[in-house]
Amino acid sequence: MRCDRVWANARLATLATSRAGLGEIDRGVVASTGDRIVYAGALEDAPSFDAAETIDCEGRWITPGLIDCHTHLVHAGDRAHEFELRLAGASYEEIARSGGGIAATVAATRAATESDLVATARPRLEALVAEGVTTVEIKSGYGLTTDDELKMLRAARGLGDRASIVTTLLGAHALPPEFADDADGYVDLVCAEMIPAAVELGLADAVDAFCEGIGFTAAQTRRVFEAARGHGLPVKLHAEQLSNLNGAALAAEFGALSADHLEHLDSTGIEAMARAGTVATLLPGAFYFLRETRLPPVEALRAAGVPMALATDCNPGTSPLTSLLLTLNMGATLFRLTVEECLTAVTRNAARALGLSGEVGTLEAGNRCDLAIWDIERPAELVYRMGFNPLHARVWRGI
Amino acid sequence: MRCDRVWANARLATLATSRAGLGEIDRGVVASTGDRIVYAGALEDAPSFDAAETIDCEGRWITPGLIDCHTHLVHAGDRAHEFELRLAGASYEEIARSGGGIAATVAATRAATESDLVATARPRLEALVAEGVTTVEIKSGYGLTTDDELKMLRAARGLGDRASIVTTLLGAHALPPEFADDADGYVDLVCAEMIPAAVELGLADAVDAFCEGIGFTAAQTRRVFEAARGHGLPVKLHAEQLSNLNGAALAAEFGALSADHLEHLDSTGIEAMARAGTVATLLPGAFYFLRETRLPPVEALRAAGVPMALATDCNPGTSPLTSLLLTLNMGATLFRLTVEECLTAVTRNAARALGLSGEVGTLEAGNRCDLAIWDIERPAELVYRMGFNPLHARVWRGI
Ligand SMILES: [Zn+2]
Ligand SMILES: [Zn+2]
Repeated sequence: MRCDRVWANARLATLATSRAGLGEIDRGVVASTGDRIVYAGALEDAPSFDAAETIDCEGRWITPGLIDCHTHLVHAGDRAHEFELRLAGASYEEIARSGGGIAATVAATRAATESDLVATARPRLEALVAEGVTTVEIKSGYGLTTDDELKMLRAARGLGDRASIVTTLLGAHALPPEFADDADGYVDLVCAEMIPAAVELGLADAVDAFCEGIGFTAAQTRRVFEAARGHGLPVKLHAEQLSNLNGAALAAEFGALSADHLEHLDSTGIEAMARAGTVATLLPGAFYFLRETRLPPVEALRAAGVPMALATDCNPGTSPLTSLLLTLNMGATLFRLTVEECLTAVTRNAARALGLSGEVGTLEAGNRCDLAIWDIERPAELVYRMGFNPLHARVWRGI
Repeated sequence: MRCDRVWANARLATLATSRAGLGEIDRGVVASTGDRIVYAGALEDAPSFDAAETIDCEGRWITPGLIDCHTHLVHAGDRAHEFELRLAGASYEEIARSGGGIAATVAATRAATESDLVATARPRLEALVAEGVTTVEIKSGYGLTTDDELKMLRAARGLGDRASIVTTLLGAHALPPEFADDADGYVDLVCAEMIPAAVELGLADAVDAFCEGIGFTAAQTRRVFEAARGHGLPVKLHAEQLSNLNGAALAAEFGALSADHLEHLDSTGIEAMARAGTVATLLPGAFYFLRETRLPPVEALRAAGVPMALATDCNPGTSPLTSLLLTLNMGATLFRLTVEECLTAVTRNAARALGLSGEVGTLEAGNRCDLAIWDIERPAELVYRMGFNPLHARVWRGI
């Protein structure tokens, strides 16, 4: 078989559903043509390759390129000073008075240009890329005007030279100061102006909302979802993080790709997600950073067969986290996911949470050739270590 | 003033006790001759320099090179598979039967050569170095025979080409299988053979023990400390991690450099440490990895004026952690140390925990020129972020 590149002498964790567990192959090989995998499997079953380039992996492990399926990577400013004040004993009120909180991020993001936003997000993206991440979801949600939301989405697309970017319009993230007493009026704006504009410009791959006491009600979320559906966009939801507003069930009703956070999810929500095939995206970085104690219902999700993903939730207020490997460790240590669940959660299931099943997230012929090549003896090491990066090489779109 | 190098146009966190807080200087400069700082302070107070090389820091922050004052960095094997089994529901008994636990690390370390140990520790050391660490304490404790303990200490010294290494003999870490029913006999060996041999060969800078129900009793620890004192070596102690055996007070009685872990420390222990000037070295990585819930008594330590250090405790069983920056975040997030306490904990106080006050840990004339230069806007960012490394450059011994 003629092809461009062959990665030989590798151990594979294919994550293909046709195999059990991680789909481990002890003597494996991957071949690519252009940006596609043309073969990934056992050497003994492989055709003979006539490759332009052959890379000897010297027994290293290859996994699919990792996928961070929930981030707020594009934003201006940081909240380090707020973090410092809080540790020193300042109350939330004092911090709000000193200009902290999400309002600070919104003000900084509004003041930033599109190229400012790209420039400040780049080091964060590079931290992910250095760990073998090849696909990153990035949400808007700190602009909260149509122009500023579109600016954020354009900045996200502008990072597409280093990883595959999936954009999500999160206009319904927080209430901007201009609408302080008129949440429904702001939702009107999201539905009637932001979503149509993002669709027209091709800037949004999905629509998200923050359904929470401090965010938007279930009724408001429903209106956002209806507008998204009217424009043919898939939805996802920040649901059940701090309380249970039955957001996950609402998301499932709209066939959502994922419901995210879920610490307060109940059995009704789990059943609805299972029926709809909605992915449960767990965000242990925010759980850790906020010192939450209520765990997401992992055992019940497992029992119901709801696919679980893990993501950094990288954001300046509640999860200033730019390591997907550390997220794996948190998923295991804090949420008790198994090693297999953790690795599936940032590959195959993360792809599904982005509507990209059959495109990325597994090593299979026809998929995009996104690989992470690791200096490890077993995949469990990727979950077990903290603050250690054993990446040998990343391959993105075959290169 | 003639000197070798000048770092100009920098913001400094000197950590000098002569200044309040972090000893911040907005328009600062550092100058070195050989491996020593000859000036660190405000530009306006500086002499004029005649330097062989001047580095423009472009407004970046300089802190002292970071110090990891408690590690088990030298060891063979990993415990990733044990971690995997435990997450999959295996009991401690099943893991012990499958050859897991500390016995696995001891067996692997005994089977390794000195150069094996150096080679496997190197990537872990490099992970620390990449974050601006310039001084690392490394303990023995997985050999548990005189020869294997000395081999570990030699391996630790063998890493001295990349950072300043401080070695600690931890013969009394665990009971080796040969002494399964004779803990006192093993302590005899530590006192009569290991300590004298390590002293004779100049391989140990201090002596440590694990005083715990699953380790050694207070009486056995006392014997180890007496032997150390007899040979002129300072002591430190793994104390009050899982229960309260009054180890910290015992350590203080011997003028210990530090008592480490301390989750179960009581007020008697705190008072003894305060009187003796013993540093409290807190290890949040192990607390996190073991999912402990009992916090060390930070407020009481603070009130008593006990200096606090933070360290990775890097070890394969309970803290496979090789990021001192992540340790800072854990110190703040999990233990509620302030930003100032966290940064002092891996510089000035960590130096003190190693008996190196006045040598490293602050930016002051006469100290070793170990610097970390950061791409940050304020020192709090070093504590606030998770899985992000803003190091611009490390300077070790002036280079
Ligand atoms: Zn989010
Ligand atoms: Zn230790």
